[in-house]
Amino acid sequence: MADSVFVLRNFLVVSLAMNMCLIWKISYDDEETLTSKWSSWGNLQQKLHHHGSCITGEKNNGRVEEAQDNKRTEILPTTSFGAAPVVPDGGESVVINLDHGDPTMYETFWKQKGEETTVVTSGWQHISYFSDIKNVCWFLEPELVSAITRLHKVVGNAITEGRHLVVGTGSSQLYQAALFALSPPNASQPMNVVSAAPFYSSYPLMTDYLKSGLHKWAGDAHQFNKEKPYIELVTSPNNPDGFTRQDVVKGHKGILIHDLAYYWPQYTPILSPANYDIMLFTVSKSTGHAGSRIGWALVKDREVAKKMTTFIEINTIGVSKDSQIRAAKILQAVAGSCDDDESFFDYSYKVMEKRWKKIREAVDKTELFSLPEFSPETCAFSGRSFGQLPAFAWLKCEGEVEDCESFLRKNKIYTRGGKHFGVSTKFVRISMLCRDTEFALFTERLPAIIS
Amino acid sequence: MADSVFVLRNFLVVSLAMNMCLIWKISYDDEETLTSKWSSWGNLQQKLHHHGSCITGEKNNGRVEEAQDNKRTEILPTTSFGAAPVVPDGGESVVINLDHGDPTMYETFWKQKGEETTVVTSGWQHISYFSDIKNVCWFLEPELVSAITRLHKVVGNAITEGRHLVVGTGSSQLYQAALFALSPPNASQPMNVVSAAPFYSSYPLMTDYLKSGLHKWAGDAHQFNKEKPYIELVTSPNNPDGFTRQDVVKGHKGILIHDLAYYWPQYTPILSPANYDIMLFTVSKSTGHAGSRIGWALVKDREVAKKMTTFIEINTIGVSKDSQIRAAKILQAVAGSCDDDESFFDYSYKVMEKRWKKIREAVDKTELFSLPEFSPETCAFSGRSFGQLPAFAWLKCEGEVEDCESFLRKNKIYTRGGKHFGVSTKFVRISMLCRDTEFALFTERLPAIIS
Repeated sequence: MADSVFVLRNFLVVSLAMNMCLIWKISYDDEETLTSKWSSWGNLQQKLHHHGSCITGEKNNGRVEEAQDNKRTEILPTTSFGAAPVVPDGGESVVINLDHGDPTMYETFWKQKGEETTVVTSGWQHISYFSDIKNVCWFLEPELVSAITRLHKVVGNAITEGRHLVVGTGSSQLYQAALFALSPPNASQPMNVVSAAPFYSSYPLMTDYLKSGLHKWAGDAHQFNKEKPYIELVTSPNNPDGFTRQDVVKGHKGILIHDLAYYWPQYTPILSPANYDIMLFTVSKSTGHAGSRIGWALVKDREVAKKMTTFIEINTIGVSKDSQIRAAKILQAVAGSCDDDESFFDYSYKVMEKRWKKIREAVDKTELFSLPEFSPETCAFSGRSFGQLPAFAWLKCEGEVEDCESFLRKNKIYTRGGKHFGVSTKFVRISMLCRDTEFALFTERLPAIIS
Repeated sequence: MADSVFVLRNFLVVSLAMNMCLIWKISYDDEETLTSKWSSWGNLQQKLHHHGSCITGEKNNGRVEEAQDNKRTEILPTTSFGAAPVVPDGGESVVINLDHGDPTMYETFWKQKGEETTVVTSGWQHISYFSDIKNVCWFLEPELVSAITRLHKVVGNAITEGRHLVVGTGSSQLYQAALFALSPPNASQPMNVVSAAPFYSSYPLMTDYLKSGLHKWAGDAHQFNKEKPYIELVTSPNNPDGFTRQDVVKGHKGILIHDLAYYWPQYTPILSPANYDIMLFTVSKSTGHAGSRIGWALVKDREVAKKMTTFIEINTIGVSKDSQIRAAKILQAVAGSCDDDESFFDYSYKVMEKRWKKIREAVDKTELFSLPEFSPETCAFSGRSFGQLPAFAWLKCEGEVEDCESFLRKNKIYTRGGKHFGVSTKFVRISMLCRDTEFALFTERLPAIIS
């Protein structure tokens, strides 16, 4: 019987190969048709809307959706994730929404990769709550452990030896898990949580939305009284401004969480493997798979890893196995591509370099705006010497414009204003990770703005 | 070109059909080999361990993993999700862990379904955070909306017309989202949350683990002072005891959340479509896909649905798209199977009926235990007349045994004791959803126990 199965298998391989060729041929033909179909402006808009694009119509005012009837809503971004779209009436009235860091830029690369990154899941797979009951993080898929460990080794951006891996529903959940793990459960006062301004606009909200008695947002780390216990968030490269960071409080009662979502070679030169107590990463910004909601934490202390696991157990009873399996395949493909002619990081570095060149050219054409400057350093991964190429442009309105967000909004460019990051309204954060068409439109419109 | 694509497509269909036959033939042959491979006891154990089974070795004492150094840890289940396994030294020393409701029972059905429920995801799909920006729940996949709506219509267990659908990372996240949405943000006191004892053991922990200022667990609904504002959780059929429930407080300041995770025709006669303000469901218990972490809420009030969406936005920035797409396919297959000779609900009803017959026979062989009795009612879906067949057996130790959980534990059966559900330690909750081998072992061991 084994022989007959072998013969059948050979036949199947040949037949499947023929199928692949046919599918490729049909897709290729369809793509040509599709390209011509989408060539008109209206259809392009339709296509982008269908994909939940950041280009929306004029009538979409992008106003804050009242998140909660709560005093703390001022820390919400100016446009909610769920702003309703309206079909635009033409190119002129199109709103370019660069408020969110939706990483659709990466779609093009993954379309080129094809079958290698396709995941096939049968109806009976991953039914159980459990993944690996021997692991501290019992809902973590072993395949994901291998993929993450391999990728960090290949890139050289983080130490994985002797660390406990905790998977989360995005790094947001891991941030909240870390706060839960690090805040004393029976303290008389909630733990202070700080980060140096400008800080990621969601940190205050994620810390305070449940009015927790365990922890509270205490603002800019630069202003913090060092005598109290605190947790300091160090985001490096920083969201929103892209700079490399160290902790700033330097008190003896502090615990650090390092958010390293952007410590990848398309955004910044990798100088050495990061070696901190708690390090957070996410596929959303490393490979672009935001829809999968997979983040991971490398945690030195076993008890902290256990408590973070407990948080996720209570919060969501684990993390989607379907997404973990998919993330594992994607991360393995990224690691594997580093031996190819053009690796994932080569490709994405080149896109980021090109976009930063374009936005700097656009800004240079006018006196109205400025951007941060970064000194070149040599990346240990690629050998290239370059300055940061952040996922967000931290744009400043020069001259008399005080509210840069409103100013750009009048010109139908939606961004997130400085006040959400704990600094002046003269600054805005602009996503650099949208699709090519949106980025091109943005860099055309920016220098055409007059005060 | 269109013609040539058409011809190629026809050829592809024929070729793919041939592949299907080949795959089926090879799988069938492989399955035979596999069955003989796993026939020995040792290997069966290995297989179960590999799947994170609820059978673990003797040395696994299943002790509480200290979830948080918090006074409230007493409300944690007696065994954590992440208990470490030890290879057993023989059949006698095997621990049967029926503490969790891990729905591995359903694997057999889904293995039979084959390709129809297989999901294929390309590397470039579902990259964006967004699913449908026109929807209140902007991260909800339209395919999942169709599948959920169709299934509720086919089964007749819930009204979907005029409801807002909110997807969650399991129904645990939706429960927390509902608390967030229903608790006034600026009240001087946190909102009281109650449920009639015995209540689901995780409710107190999910309500209090962050020491929220928005809501607090206020215990058994029967004991609640009706003059204060409150949220009452109505779980029907109830976890742990399987009874149909109504709200009990009947105060004028109350808001209800209906947890209908078990309101499906394999567990209970469907009497009429549920029609409440907030109804929670989950694939974990309806189809058995716990690893996907997909739950949904049907919400009457748009503002409540918006606030629940905001909670999930802050908590995890949406819900895995990979799992949503998969859940949509599974739910469509379940709805579609209702026209087949044996529908998913027929199959699972028969398994539950058989198991309940077996556990009642086992309990009848001894004077030590008793089980609840349920009166038969006619199911509007199946036309069958039957009494509840709950996902958990709510077993009582009769006679002198006061701590039923410890008593069974000495006999290497792990269950969850009554105190976790707010009632006497004479009761335990036992999962009825494990694999056949585990259930057979359990119903053999139970009547052999002597006091």
